[in-house]
Amino acid sequence: MKKQIDLNSDLGESFGQWQMGNDEAILPIVSSANIACGFHAGSPEGILKTLKAAKENGVAVGAHVGYPDLVGFGRRNMDIASNELTADVIYQIGALKGLAIAAGTQVQYVKPHGALYNTIAHDKRQAMAVINAILAIDSQLILVALAGSPLISWARESGLNVVAEAFADRAYNSDGTLVSRKLAGSVLHDPKQVAERMLQLVNEGGVTAIDGKFTPIEAGSICVHGDSPGALEMAQQVRTAFEKQGIEIYGFAHKGDHE
Amino acid sequence: MKKQIDLNSDLGESFGQWQMGNDEAILPIVSSANIACGFHAGSPEGILKTLKAAKENGVAVGAHVGYPDLVGFGRRNMDIASNELTADVIYQIGALKGLAIAAGTQVQYVKPHGALYNTIAHDKRQAMAVINAILAIDSQLILVALAGSPLISWARESGLNVVAEAFADRAYNSDGTLVSRKLAGSVLHDPKQVAERMLQLVNEGGVTAIDGKFTPIEAGSICVHGDSPGALEMAQQVRTAFEKQGIEIYGFAHKGDHE
Amino acid sequence: MKKQIDLNSDLGESFGQWQMGNDEAILPIVSSANIACGFHAGSPEGILKTLKAAKENGVAVGAHVGYPDLVGFGRRNMDIASNELTADVIYQIGALKGLAIAAGTQVQYVKPHGALYNTIAHDKRQAMAVINAILAIDSQLILVALAGSPLISWARESGLNVVAEAFADRAYNSDGTLVSRKLAGSVLHDPKQVAERMLQLVNEGGVTAIDGKFTPIEAGSICVHGDSPGALEMAQQVRTAFEKQGIEIYGFAHKGDHE
Amino acid sequence: MKKQIDLNSDLGESFGQWQMGNDEAILPIVSSANIACGFHAGSPEGILKTLKAAKENGVAVGAHVGYPDLVGFGRRNMDIASNELTADVIYQIGALKGLAIAAGTQVQYVKPHGALYNTIAHDKRQAMAVINAILAIDSQLILVALAGSPLISWARESGLNVVAEAFADRAYNSDGTLVSRKLAGSVLHDPKQVAERMLQLVNEGGVTAIDGKFTPIEAGSICVHGDSPGALEMAQQVRTAFEKQGIEIYGFAHKGDHE
Repeated sequence: MKKQIDLNSDLGESFGQWQMGNDEAILPIVSSANIACGFHAGSPEGILKTLKAAKENGVAVGAHVGYPDLVGFGRRNMDIASNELTADVIYQIGALKGLAIAAGTQVQYVKPHGALYNTIAHDKRQAMAVINAILAIDSQLILVALAGSPLISWARESGLNVVAEAFADRAYNSDGTLVSRKLAGSVLHDPKQVAERMLQLVNEGGVTAIDGKFTPIEAGSICVHGDSPGALEMAQQVRTAFEKQGIEIYGFAHKGDHE
Repeated sequence: MKKQIDLNSDLGESFGQWQMGNDEAILPIVSSANIACGFHAGSPEGILKTLKAAKENGVAVGAHVGYPDLVGFGRRNMDIASNELTADVIYQIGALKGLAIAAGTQVQYVKPHGALYNTIAHDKRQAMAVINAILAIDSQLILVALAGSPLISWARESGLNVVAEAFADRAYNSDGTLVSRKLAGSVLHDPKQVAERMLQLVNEGGVTAIDGKFTPIEAGSICVHGDSPGALEMAQQVRTAFEKQGIEIYGFAHKGDHE
Repeated sequence: MKKQIDLNSDLGESFGQWQMGNDEAILPIVSSANIACGFHAGSPEGILKTLKAAKENGVAVGAHVGYPDLVGFGRRNMDIASNELTADVIYQIGALKGLAIAAGTQVQYVKPHGALYNTIAHDKRQAMAVINAILAIDSQLILVALAGSPLISWARESGLNVVAEAFADRAYNSDGTLVSRKLAGSVLHDPKQVAERMLQLVNEGGVTAIDGKFTPIEAGSICVHGDSPGALEMAQQVRTAFEKQGIEIYGFAHKGDHE
Repeated sequence: MKKQIDLNSDLGESFGQWQMGNDEAILPIVSSANIACGFHAGSPEGILKTLKAAKENGVAVGAHVGYPDLVGFGRRNMDIASNELTADVIYQIGALKGLAIAAGTQVQYVKPHGALYNTIAHDKRQAMAVINAILAIDSQLILVALAGSPLISWARESGLNVVAEAFADRAYNSDGTLVSRKLAGSVLHDPKQVAERMLQLVNEGGVTAIDGKFTPIEAGSICVHGDSPGALEMAQQVRTAFEKQGIEIYGFAHKGDHE
């Protein structure tokens, strides 16, 4: 049986006249596009354009929902009430679903963004607010969650399909957690090394941690970036490494679509 | 055959901590609720609450889409590009559809708000941008448009179902247009007079214009207000007058729902 | 020598078409008006109107600065970087200063709002960001801070003038801290009792805590509310009690202005 | 007596994580920086950074005030009420003044942005709202206005100092108006040609219009751009051409500062 992996990236992050990222360049590399929904980034006309481009590239689309914090790009923790967070997430998914229909595609998964992503990986109250939002609007949507985080079991116990995610350019501790960005060596910059690590992830089911020990990581998707020439080069090398070994870059969210 | 008419009102216009209108009091009076979608008014948690209340009252819900102008409450004309306006309208309808699913109901029509409503009644470019938005997300959605305006034929020619709307508290010119708010007598304040005029509208197919002539008005829905005790009293008297004569207050948009 | 106290209240909290509070009713009662600056509440035209009304009533004005969170009314904690918070506070004070000039008055103090107020009472990093903002734009501005909080000494050590503030309608623990809103009895509702407690505060330098012990509270200003008929009644009774005893309701911030 | 001219450019247009323009590259070229104030572009922390950079480069700063339309970048006409527009402009100028103090500099002029700039060049109602805003906050602020527009006399009659502005990269009609952007040849792209035209403007008091006739243009400042390598190259060539002829690039707004 053929090995498969998903490659995802954040797209649609421009806002009005402000450009961000390079959606056209990353789309041919990835299989899943996390598309901003207007709360931390993305304005309707630009989101629609990105959805159409994703459709043209045969890339699955997911709702990259975030905190209502445009100026902070959704990267600042917010102590938001559960009913407000649930409604905010439903609103964002609904808006993206509407634009996706207009683009001839459909939203297949949800990947929270920035501070919301990090918070719900461990904070059960906010996690349940997001889970309840997905259940309330479309329980078939897959949740993309940090590999190894308690969020995964909270979501599965609630009835959601979950795909765990690894980060191509991040170092891991031997307990499977990410090395804090505050520590040296937390972010990897060598495309070749990163590509080899991602092969290791798919072939061996884990990566070498920062302390040299092998660490199992269960991940169905790998996050890559497209917002700089270096990031694009890294993403391309990861893809090429998979292709050379016959590993299928298969949008996890496409499964339900095709079966 | 029983006579029917729809009563609609604007709801969900609170924003965060700021309250507006009296959704609980107007819901038992109307058959259709135009619900703000977050661009000129409405925040997700409050919109969701209003949708649930509409569901409980058996009231149809429509997307009250507006310009992206919160501080101006969508009442200021904006010279917005067609592709931006189309995407803005799709986004708003999609967001409301998502919240409606969570509330156990569904969006059945679209009624543009404020300056957008007035502009597209006569401006074909912006009108087509709104029409194209509705067609792109859900061509079954009904458009509520100003009775007598060219928008009605533009929308019908584009394939949309349209319901023309009259305003209970407004005087009409003998050509069927609204008397400008800048002129004396443009707004009616006597609930009894208004109720009688609305009976005239349903029974005779028109109202007495400001110059005393009878003016035909084709309208399937009547807009009433709930944002003051006086407005609520007027809306109630209109409803009671219809009930006394056995005129069914039938959410136009409910038809598809019930047949 | 005559006893003096300041009465302050939050004003200018309307936003566009959304009304909040009752600025006209509370202005004759208080000596200092904390005016929203547009980040958690307040839009320019409404702020200007409130500033003019404060000027007409001879009430001192202060900048009620908040987090950039309109939909959350600045009541949600935000983990905002220090340089961003400093710039946000300078921006808000500057904007209010500009409008104050247009209204013929001047900003005399700064009272942070909501979650920012509570956070900087104890969080030194965010507190210093606010203190540095005030020093950067106008070191003569007085900071209004929670009585008994460490913020007071941080600000004084930084060279700011500080006025400590008590809350008329709140119960106190015997260590001088506020009883948590989550506990029964934390909020007082009887205007007569509140007026007596505030007399006790001015005459004895403290109040009876929730456990019955006398608790010293050093406060130069008392916060009252005007957003409901009950709150206005309470504020009026506090003012009347002071007037009957010849205690001068003297805008603390007016001092520099008049001496 | 030495010839003088001012060179201005739009700066501080980044917003949160979104970058726009190249403030560091254009600052050594210009003498005046029109800095966004947060309504159409600019967030407080970024504005403060740009103000500090302007200060370091000895460049005068002006308030680049705009419509409250972030997603539209202030480029969409808005039919805004006069009292709201006046308050919006005061708010923006006040905010920038506050940040300028923190940066060790001061706001010396006002140049409206985008759709507001174009509208008030000809629309007296909105023009007077902006003029009244400047008079209300600081009547010493200079207004930068489109050369040849009626705004200039409206502002001068109101008591404001006005500097008329020409655009380096735009073609002119022989009546002194700008050639519409919709027409071929309206925007000039050749840096050498542009530099020569700007020398003509300073030396002869006008430029050759699109129909070949010499057109007088009274302009104290020239607008150049820095948001692309080509724009920077053009701006640099204009500056170099002036320097070679000993024409002083003298921040018009600096005069009051230095004399």
